[in-house]
Amino acid sequence: AEGTLGVITAATLKLFPRPRTLETSFCALRDPEAAIELLARLREATGDAVTTFELIPRLALDLVLRHIPGCSDPLGERHAWYALVELSTARHDPALRALLEQVLGDAHAAGLVPDAAFAESGPQRDMFWRIRERIPESQNLEGPSLKHDVSVPVSRLPQFLREATALVASIAPGVRIVSYGHAGDGNLHFNASPPEGGDLTEFRSHEAALKRAVHDLAAKLAGSFSAEHGIGRLKVGELERYEDPHALEVMRAIKGALDPRGIMNPGKLLR
Amino acid sequence: AEGTLGVITAATLKLFPRPRTLETSFCALRDPEAAIELLARLREATGDAVTTFELIPRLALDLVLRHIPGCSDPLGERHAWYALVELSTARHDPALRALLEQVLGDAHAAGLVPDAAFAESGPQRDMFWRIRERIPESQNLEGPSLKHDVSVPVSRLPQFLREATALVASIAPGVRIVSYGHAGDGNLHFNASPPEGGDLTEFRSHEAALKRAVHDLAAKLAGSFSAEHGIGRLKVGELERYEDPHALEVMRAIKGALDPRGIMNPGKLLR
Repeated sequence: AEGTLGVITAATLKLFPRPRTLETSFCALRDPEAAIELLARLREATGDAVTTFELIPRLALDLVLRHIPGCSDPLGERHAWYALVELSTARHDPALRALLEQVLGDAHAAGLVPDAAFAESGPQRDMFWRIRERIPESQNLEGPSLKHDVSVPVSRLPQFLREATALVASIAPGVRIVSYGHAGDGNLHFNASPPEGGDLTEFRSHEAALKRAVHDLAAKLAGSFSAEHGIGRLKVGELERYEDPHALEVMRAIKGALDPRGIMNPGKLLR
Repeated sequence: AEGTLGVITAATLKLFPRPRTLETSFCALRDPEAAIELLARLREATGDAVTTFELIPRLALDLVLRHIPGCSDPLGERHAWYALVELSTARHDPALRALLEQVLGDAHAAGLVPDAAFAESGPQRDMFWRIRERIPESQNLEGPSLKHDVSVPVSRLPQFLREATALVASIAPGVRIVSYGHAGDGNLHFNASPPEGGDLTEFRSHEAALKRAVHDLAAKLAGSFSAEHGIGRLKVGELERYEDPHALEVMRAIKGALDPRGIMNPGKLLR
């Protein structure tokens, strides 16, 4: 709540065992529908040992390969979509690798996963992760971009990607979409970069229309204009647009009850 | 919040795979300290696949055997304390049984677990669970009792049991303590039955003093007078005694903000 409701003065942690067995794969995907189907198969077969399922489009991989030294394509051929998949358990679990191979093998046979690489060592796992983690930096190195952090129900991710991409193409033809993120949570970073060599002033002129189209679509699909990054000062206007007026009224009433003199980070989150 | 803060009009569920592998044991314990040590060993060795850890004293087992038809002692000899332990995973996991046997074998060698029975079938698992689940009913069939639902940090459960039992003995000599529950959560049902053949009027005359002693002790050990059953109308006085005055003030302020006319279950939870 951005410090508008109170200040945390102490916290007690309950500790859980750390993961001991990790199995990681960088998989090519037929399309975003295949991602959702693969995620369901992994959860079913592994008893929900899926602790990472990151959707990555080819453009994101291209940007990382272009801008981040020491990264290489884990697979031999180009594919439109990828997933970084990790299974983990908190105990020594020699059966986990075979489970992952079996699910990916079945998904390959079903046409969902054209190819997959397995991390055979810690450094190879680190490389898979580096590709995912350095997407934001590589997009920044490519130039300015317009960023959205949306969520939709997992089952609607493919529809969101299809419709949002079409909307962007109609508003700002040629704009490149780098849409990646925590697909297992229904959370996507839907970011736009200008066309290669495109005019930046024109690109920036689309900012408001793109934001409105992307956030309206997320709302239409029972999602949110804000996923993991919260509201913050940046999205106060969006909160007022998309949140139920009664919910806003309740938020203001609670703020007023806890902070009647308005001394806790005033005017930031609720206006 | 007993309906004092609002009414739930809809809910959306995210589903997770159901458990497929269950391994269950009814273990004798040297004492409550051994319970905490065994719990830690189980979590460590199984990667926290521990989904049940129920502490049961001998008196509870005696009451079940006396009052519930079709129950029998899972172990050959009498022991002072028991734990119902269950490990589970959401996938087919043939290694789980061996893990449980290994931890219990090591704990036996260390003197923590004098004996243990394993559920070899669904009906045997049901029998272990029936013993645990019918403790409240068997204590009711034995006669009136005074019940407390407390929590303390898991590491302090043995100290709580030792001191609380001594307090009860000093206030109401001969009273029988049936203290059982979700030790893995630090949650205990600390219930008192009168001495066998004891005078009920005298027993009931100790109610206020026992409650005060037990709840004060839980508070002293950084626990709570209320664990899984919440506050409710029954414990409003306890809430006012043990809760921080500022926290109570905040609760009342939020209630006032959400329900300024006092129409939502008025006067029940906050006075």
